[in-house]
Amino acid sequence: MDRTRGPVDPVRAAAARYAGARVARVEDPRLLTGHGTFVDDVVRPGMLHACFVRSPLARARITGIDVSEALAVEGVHAVFTAEDLNPGVHEPWYSLAGRDVPDSPRPPLAEDEVRFVGDPVALVVAADRYLAEDAAELVVVDYEPLPPVVDYVTARESAELVFPQFARNVLGELGGRPTTELAPVFDQAPWSVRETVYQQAYAPVPIETRGLVAEWSAAGGELTIWAATQSPHEVRLFCSRLLGLPEHRIRVVMRDTGGGFGQKAVVQREDMCVMLAALKVPAALKWIEDRRENLLAAGQSRHEHGDVRMAFDADGRILAASIDYVQDVGAYPVPWPVGPSMAVGMFFPGPYRVPEGTFSITSVFSNTVGRTAYRGPWQFESVARELMLDVAARRMGMDPVELRRRNLLRRDELPYTNPVGVPYGDISPLETFEQALGMLDYEAFRKEQERARGEGRFLGVGTCTYVEPTTAGMGVHGTEGATIRIEPSGKVNVYVSGGSTGNSLETTVVQLTADALGVDIADVHTIQGDTAITPFGGGTGGSRSGSMTAGAVAETAAVLRERIAAIAAHRLEAAAEDIELVDGHARVRGVPGAGLSLAEIAAIAYLQPESLPPGMPAGLEASGRYRAESMIILANATHLCTCEVDVTTGRVTLLRYIVSEDCGPMINPSVVEGQIAGGTVQGIGGALYEHLAYDADGNPVTGTFMDYLLPTAAEVPIIEYGHVETPGPGPGGYKGVGEGGAIGAPPAVINAVADALAPFGVHITRLPLTPESIVTLVRRARESRAAEPGTVPR
Amino acid sequence: MDRTRGPVDPVRAAAARYAGARVARVEDPRLLTGHGTFVDDVVRPGMLHACFVRSPLARARITGIDVSEALAVEGVHAVFTAEDLNPGVHEPWYSLAGRDVPDSPRPPLAEDEVRFVGDPVALVVAADRYLAEDAAELVVVDYEPLPPVVDYVTARESAELVFPQFARNVLGELGGRPTTELAPVFDQAPWSVRETVYQQAYAPVPIETRGLVAEWSAAGGELTIWAATQSPHEVRLFCSRLLGLPEHRIRVVMRDTGGGFGQKAVVQREDMCVMLAALKVPAALKWIEDRRENLLAAGQSRHEHGDVRMAFDADGRILAASIDYVQDVGAYPVPWPVGPSMAVGMFFPGPYRVPEGTFSITSVFSNTVGRTAYRGPWQFESVARELMLDVAARRMGMDPVELRRRNLLRRDELPYTNPVGVPYGDISPLETFEQALGMLDYEAFRKEQERARGEGRFLGVGTCTYVEPTTAGMGVHGTEGATIRIEPSGKVNVYVSGGSTGNSLETTVVQLTADALGVDIADVHTIQGDTAITPFGGGTGGSRSGSMTAGAVAETAAVLRERIAAIAAHRLEAAAEDIELVDGHARVRGVPGAGLSLAEIAAIAYLQPESLPPGMPAGLEASGRYRAESMIILANATHLCTCEVDVTTGRVTLLRYIVSEDCGPMINPSVVEGQIAGGTVQGIGGALYEHLAYDADGNPVTGTFMDYLLPTAAEVPIIEYGHVETPGPGPGGYKGVGEGGAIGAPPAVINAVADALAPFGVHITRLPLTPESIVTLVRRARESRAAEPGTVPR
Repeated sequence: MDRTRGPVDPVRAAAARYAGARVARVEDPRLLTGHGTFVDDVVRPGMLHACFVRSPLARARITGIDVSEALAVEGVHAVFTAEDLNPGVHEPWYSLAGRDVPDSPRPPLAEDEVRFVGDPVALVVAADRYLAEDAAELVVVDYEPLPPVVDYVTARESAELVFPQFARNVLGELGGRPTTELAPVFDQAPWSVRETVYQQAYAPVPIETRGLVAEWSAAGGELTIWAATQSPHEVRLFCSRLLGLPEHRIRVVMRDTGGGFGQKAVVQREDMCVMLAALKVPAALKWIEDRRENLLAAGQSRHEHGDVRMAFDADGRILAASIDYVQDVGAYPVPWPVGPSMAVGMFFPGPYRVPEGTFSITSVFSNTVGRTAYRGPWQFESVARELMLDVAARRMGMDPVELRRRNLLRRDELPYTNPVGVPYGDISPLETFEQALGMLDYEAFRKEQERARGEGRFLGVGTCTYVEPTTAGMGVHGTEGATIRIEPSGKVNVYVSGGSTGNSLETTVVQLTADALGVDIADVHTIQGDTAITPFGGGTGGSRSGSMTAGAVAETAAVLRERIAAIAAHRLEAAAEDIELVDGHARVRGVPGAGLSLAEIAAIAYLQPESLPPGMPAGLEASGRYRAESMIILANATHLCTCEVDVTTGRVTLLRYIVSEDCGPMINPSVVEGQIAGGTVQGIGGALYEHLAYDADGNPVTGTFMDYLLPTAAEVPIIEYGHVETPGPGPGGYKGVGEGGAIGAPPAVINAVADALAPFGVHITRLPLTPESIVTLVRRARESRAAEPGTVPR
Repeated sequence: MDRTRGPVDPVRAAAARYAGARVARVEDPRLLTGHGTFVDDVVRPGMLHACFVRSPLARARITGIDVSEALAVEGVHAVFTAEDLNPGVHEPWYSLAGRDVPDSPRPPLAEDEVRFVGDPVALVVAADRYLAEDAAELVVVDYEPLPPVVDYVTARESAELVFPQFARNVLGELGGRPTTELAPVFDQAPWSVRETVYQQAYAPVPIETRGLVAEWSAAGGELTIWAATQSPHEVRLFCSRLLGLPEHRIRVVMRDTGGGFGQKAVVQREDMCVMLAALKVPAALKWIEDRRENLLAAGQSRHEHGDVRMAFDADGRILAASIDYVQDVGAYPVPWPVGPSMAVGMFFPGPYRVPEGTFSITSVFSNTVGRTAYRGPWQFESVARELMLDVAARRMGMDPVELRRRNLLRRDELPYTNPVGVPYGDISPLETFEQALGMLDYEAFRKEQERARGEGRFLGVGTCTYVEPTTAGMGVHGTEGATIRIEPSGKVNVYVSGGSTGNSLETTVVQLTADALGVDIADVHTIQGDTAITPFGGGTGGSRSGSMTAGAVAETAAVLRERIAAIAAHRLEAAAEDIELVDGHARVRGVPGAGLSLAEIAAIAYLQPESLPPGMPAGLEASGRYRAESMIILANATHLCTCEVDVTTGRVTLLRYIVSEDCGPMINPSVVEGQIAGGTVQGIGGALYEHLAYDADGNPVTGTFMDYLLPTAAEVPIIEYGHVETPGPGPGGYKGVGEGGAIGAPPAVINAVADALAPFGVHITRLPLTPESIVTLVRRARESRAAEPGTVPR
């Protein structure tokens, strides 16, 4: 048998009973009845609890730390400072991205200098968390304040340096050809627009905060870690290098993780501290981040701006597009944010015909919390492009829908290579756009909008069409493994690295496995999220886990199907190619009644190996590893929403929200729509509510959910879904869909608000669109155009 | 690649650094520092504790059970009787032996009638074990006593029936041709001996008693069991059928099991009760057997006798041998003891040239505890044969050693088929016999014995030479699986079903894997004993785990070696056949310095899959399953011991103890010798001390270690080891060795005592040889022969 062939497609080969169906999530019974096991549910004998002492200043020199008073508290086991923990670092930093990538410093605890409010300075270990918190307040840290670099926009020119080893506050710069090369095109085009668009900092804020329990067994030389993570194998490999412990003596376990969205994709400094401390304490050590810490220290995202230019011909056809992009990476970003930000430039042209384009990318340090990955980390490309298209349409006096129709790529003109070299194939931009418009009845809405304006009500409609890179086929994320064990009773266990982070991967895997083996879904169970149990895998991230795991299951099940068919053929005296797997039986095609149940076949394989065909291995287990053939598989979608803006209070009410998505065939439409909904709500939050804000001294001002506003069910409209299906090149034609919602929602919402406020001639270039900002925009528009009576509604 | 080929031998292919060496046990650091995890170390949130109410009568009708008083105790959660638990049995009995085997009844709790003292009648569940024990005493059971069938010897003729559904107290009968057919040979032979030899009941008595924790998650439909077991997969499959739960929703975990010796090979009635009760209580349920229960209810072994005949020609050459064998199976034997007892008949001819032979086997019920497997369950064949050979030698006036020399098979006359049809190959009976005699200096001992007799001291020498079936290649025990994962850092995890039961399987597996991959043993870790993690396997039993696991590791490592060589060849631009794996590197033969570390190869396989050779699957993991080619692999050995018998007190002092063993090549001589020593000490216990005794009413009289005497270090001599190496047909030539000690020791010890007492003309046919029995034998000999002055020493 050729184990090295490319992707196979068992789902289509067999009758797909489950793939494509709205199968109920197998995760839900335990989660909905309160039986989930999150890291804080882990209790170990004699377990100790950790609490961090954090910097109250954005930048300061540490001149002394006195832990004596804290150590004197009964029940306090240890207080660790940088001097205790940091020398334990065996290898300074390594992520699955590769050890050769240059990176910024990352001491577990702050050394010499603190660099943001919340910077961990000491770790208190006590018998319970209450004691640890109380003792943390008794740790006396002497600080000599230094002038902080708070504003990343001006940081490049600052003489104050976040890291003295960097000559400027710049972590890295990347780019295509210089933006200036396109100047002639922009200068000579019939229409040319240029704006600087600013997006505020916001954050993943998963329901479950970060946390881990680390337990060291000196006798066995074994470290066990229970982690809230998107990638247990990443945690293991990282920990192995951090501590210099052999990888095979570390076990990382996750059962349920309450959301990650990128924040739990890699190991952060607090995790490093707990791992290092675990080797120095006599029992398991637990650290559970509280909400304040999560908002303070778990990382920010999105804080960025772009100097955006677009040029059009007289008919509105795009001639060129460029972006000079600057992102705030804070003081301690997760590794090498410069690399992923490349995607901002690569996808800025989006799903449009753009003959010329380029970009530059600059990553700037500041004395704020480090940048972390967040669902669609490159989504600024959509924000910048889609805002500018609406700005341009209004300038040209053209409906934004019409402008897009003239420029969007159609499925029948693919493949296409965008102006910065990204190849597009298997996408349907215009098709999703038209589907979404049709679901709304765009013309009817425009009429209603007109009517409402007459009544002094301001409705708006906005769209965003984007193409999304999913399932990157490079490096560690380019493969995924699965083990399938058909047990002696014929029941099936399928092992993948994944883990339950809310992305329904357990459901996906049992669906695909049941189909691939032709068995009832109840006969399939999946075991995930334990490095001792599952094959290595890249974890959840980059919208990869569904499609990559589908490949792994397909490869592996194909091996078992051949074995099953051979055993059945031998026993039934038929040809293997006449055997089909259906309803938990191997049947001879065209011979009614002739067949063996999978239980019978498994019993032969394990319990009566002497009855196997000659040369057939005993047992019914296989391990396979799928290797993505494409560098990137593209998904695409159009978000469309309508809103009403109350110009007196600044309140935005979303009226309808439509998503037309093409992620290829859907393994489970309910799961796909759940993914879209989750991302869309986060995107709505980013557009209208969420803002991780600092004052001028670098003090965070949004430390609770009273200040950091998440959208609730009251703010979120019903989301309507349309699906277009363009199979991708991978197994089953599946594509990723995890991040799209968070990419598509902000521009659609912003454009809808801008459309509602179009009569005022307002100009939206700064996010989020809080009530205050909308009221201010409207007030300024009225003031500046007060001289032109009748041009602005009262 | 051909995954279906027969056994491969990577250990020899590579330079074997570890196989054959006295590698220190990897289990020991945790066990010796008190960090082992036995089932009683498992604590679960809100865990409940179980205690059984047991019958005080050997046979009685249950006329009523009143649980009200027990239930009223605070902290008591439930009291279950047969009416509560027994209807939960989904499939009445099933073991890995196969569901088609007929078997005796096995209700979880006693129904209507109790059948032995200790029969479980009710199960009390309480917040702790103390409460449960106290409440168990408050359960009122009304019994109507019935006449018990205590003596299995007369049970066949008893009108009282242990089970009314069996017309006689006989579970089954098997046999070769009728013993009577050989009557002419016996009648006409120059020498013919006939005795009935009785062996007492004794038991495995592992240091850790039985126990399990079962935790049901109704939300997930998942049952987790922590078990003291020799075979976690057997427990899972059994439980699946018992409860009607799908096998893949049950997880059975063992970490350390403190000995099993057969008693923990299959699920017993108490385990069934805990599994059934676990579904009815709101938290995990723990039952830990106490020592009294273990001696009362965990099963007896060895209780049996044989009517043995042997015929010789004038020169002492064996002409024929037959045995009519009867075994006590008690009331509730573990499944189908009739089958394994077949081996008593099959191996009764032993490693001797026996032209004619036959046997019959009868299994008899009694109102005593059920028969359980115990290390070498068929060992009565050796006891019966070797005793009779000494009896015959004395009758013929020939030294027993000389008699054996004339009859033992030599390696150079194999293959040979014994008179009941068992094929022998790859054994060395005469060779081990002569090696053992040489280690002793037999002639010198005989002179010393003569001298001692002159001083009124009675020394003796005894031998036992046997051939032992190991590693049975049939059915469920005929295959064994392994998964080897070379992790991204190049460290190795190897997964086998096994588990730590004292047999050093962890050490064995890491030795073999390190050799097979050419890596340092510290770079290999093994994960075992968890059905969710490891491939299916038959567990520990039948001296199979070492050699079968060796096969599984060899099959699996061979796949990885090919992959490693191909990756290295591709990267180093060499031919794959020029690559050799040594010291953790893939090197090009004959090119000094050219090589890649396994860490570098693993990094390519997982983290840079795009750098793999074309067509090569990513990752470095393989699963394989070894299928034994031979039905049975034979080991053989000679035990030889010398003793002094104090005829006044009856005390037996063992002087020297020599074992010459041929288990083929040794994976680890320390482990082999540990296995031999353990079995030998159990055999010495069986010959001299241990007796699970009942009074005439069926009351057990040996309920503590004050009554049931185990040999201690004070009673056990230093054991000297000789090794003969005849490779078997399996991978590495390895054979099993787990049971031999318990088979060889009793006859050697008994013959030594008989030899010491030869001057008295005593006749040993009943075991054990307690001081009382020896004093009685000597007294009777003196009395009976008092009429012949000078024939018996004073």
